[in-house]
Amino acid sequence: MKLNECLSKISPAGAVLAEKAKHKIDFKTKPVGSLGVLEDIALKMSSIQNSLDPVINGRRMFVFAGDHGITAEGVSAFPAAVTPQMVMNFLAGGAAINVLCRHAGIDIGIVDMGVNFDFKSAHGLIDRKVAKGTKNFLRENAMSEVEAARAIENGIAVFIDAYNAKKFGIVGVGDMGIGNTTSASAIIATITGASAADVTGRGTGIDDKGLSNKIDIIERSLSERSPDPKNALDVLMKVCGFEIAGIAGCVLAAAAHRVPVVLDGIISTAGGLIAHTFNPSVSDYLFCAHRSVEKGQTLALKKMGVSPLLDFSLRLGEGTGAALAIPIIDAACAIMRDMASFESAGVTNKE
Amino acid sequence: MKLNECLSKISPAGAVLAEKAKHKIDFKTKPVGSLGVLEDIALKMSSIQNSLDPVINGRRMFVFAGDHGITAEGVSAFPAAVTPQMVMNFLAGGAAINVLCRHAGIDIGIVDMGVNFDFKSAHGLIDRKVAKGTKNFLRENAMSEVEAARAIENGIAVFIDAYNAKKFGIVGVGDMGIGNTTSASAIIATITGASAADVTGRGTGIDDKGLSNKIDIIERSLSERSPDPKNALDVLMKVCGFEIAGIAGCVLAAAAHRVPVVLDGIISTAGGLIAHTFNPSVSDYLFCAHRSVEKGQTLALKKMGVSPLLDFSLRLGEGTGAALAIPIIDAACAIMRDMASFESAGVTNKE
Repeated sequence: MKLNECLSKISPAGAVLAEKAKHKIDFKTKPVGSLGVLEDIALKMSSIQNSLDPVINGRRMFVFAGDHGITAEGVSAFPAAVTPQMVMNFLAGGAAINVLCRHAGIDIGIVDMGVNFDFKSAHGLIDRKVAKGTKNFLRENAMSEVEAARAIENGIAVFIDAYNAKKFGIVGVGDMGIGNTTSASAIIATITGASAADVTGRGTGIDDKGLSNKIDIIERSLSERSPDPKNALDVLMKVCGFEIAGIAGCVLAAAAHRVPVVLDGIISTAGGLIAHTFNPSVSDYLFCAHRSVEKGQTLALKKMGVSPLLDFSLRLGEGTGAALAIPIIDAACAIMRDMASFESAGVTNKE
Repeated sequence: MKLNECLSKISPAGAVLAEKAKHKIDFKTKPVGSLGVLEDIALKMSSIQNSLDPVINGRRMFVFAGDHGITAEGVSAFPAAVTPQMVMNFLAGGAAINVLCRHAGIDIGIVDMGVNFDFKSAHGLIDRKVAKGTKNFLRENAMSEVEAARAIENGIAVFIDAYNAKKFGIVGVGDMGIGNTTSASAIIATITGASAADVTGRGTGIDDKGLSNKIDIIERSLSERSPDPKNALDVLMKVCGFEIAGIAGCVLAAAAHRVPVVLDGIISTAGGLIAHTFNPSVSDYLFCAHRSVEKGQTLALKKMGVSPLLDFSLRLGEGTGAALAIPIIDAACAIMRDMASFESAGVTNKE
């Protein structure tokens, strides 16, 4: 599916049932509002599914991987070689995201969006490679305009292929890419208008000197590239990563299919923010799994009007937070469907 | 089991494997510390089970119910009749805790510790009733010394009976009892030394006037009863509820059996605090599911050195937060057991 076709299929989740849904949750056997965030989730799921009995049939996770030319500037604590090594770890089932997806019964797919490695026919890998890593965006655009469109359409295709093969009721989006917090911070600074210092963190664990270098690189890159904050394709082309573009495409496709998407940490939130720049209605389909240690995420979420569910000081990415949050979203749907009302249970309501 | 025998069986969780456990989690394929709270949970579970491969076989939840004489002072937004009505709702499977336990595969037990109702032979109810509700502790002690000891030993028995019938690897503790936030706040004020105003919230939803009345009732009760903060039995006798005493007993029994316990909101946290007053080593076996809207919980947790996992603005009790947190604790164990190391996966570590 082309980007424009996908965008044309996205509409707001709608509020036809909003009043009935609120009434249903308010008259369950509990004080009004006492299930807090679970109630918010249940109402959002009702809105997405346009149903008073929301149900999640099938849980899906995609981990989008890509390499980053900007690593040449020494922005990461780990060498770029770790990206393909971790992809092999994902395929072997040994990474944190594999463990958490198995634990929560989530089908996982690993997507090569642009890793600087020739995986040949690695078993189970979804090959959507656009190029062997982005260019160093301090020196030149991260990708060409053609590559940017291809990357986002590849993300759309990842969603659609899997969905056509086996429907699912929710999708989590995770990432792997050494150097990608630098790209995510640049994207978020651009679109929110915040300074590089306000959106940049330590990634996989750089020290104070590394952090100040990273901020400096982002500042100079944004000054050199000057991406247009209103033009998502321009942002993609100038400072994005292929895996982040893939996430943005997947978010757009999910919204077009009215499937809720669970963002993870700062990388997938940056992907969500790009999707949101294409069409702000995607917010209606977005959950955010957790508050990342990376502070840029908070500003991006605020722009989209989405609140994180967990606050576990996670800073791994891969979709690990999303894998923890999906069962909670599912539990909120169960509350909406299965919990008794004051009337049905014969319980006396508050005066 | 008598209280003293149970207390004699509680020992610190121990740190024999602490260094090995830390090494194991630090060399998994992720930046050190990047799984945040999940790593803390994994290490605590390793310590509790004295194993580098912690595993939770069987999930259990108990909802302890009791009535409160203090409701005569107008401290609650709901009438006391709701306590037995909700017990029937639990037994019928329609309450929030039923839905969440079914969703998470948690076996649930409903315990009558002191409800002011004759359930006769209600199917599935665990009958550990001490009396038909506590006395109004503004006017007299909530229970006699004999009742206090019986209540806590009944809580111990609830754990042991279930554990002997079918072993489990984790237990959540929830509550039902109209008026019980008043008792919990009185307990927490006593043991932490905080003022009534600092530990008292709106419970099921009283207004400003109701809140100021509730604070006043607690202040006057504590002044009349002057429970000894160092003497857990004295606190039990003077201001406790039967369900809170049952929770305290269950926590002690779990610690004696080296089974982790998941506290829920302010009520079960007050029960945990009483157990902690008997023996501070129980902290080694405690998790707290979530930060309650009731502010007294925070002070009680601080005293025990336990941090809440979720922050969902829950204020329902029943164990609802614990039912959400148990799968997360289980997930942390899976990370500790199953995730690959840098060496086993052939991934390059940070310099």
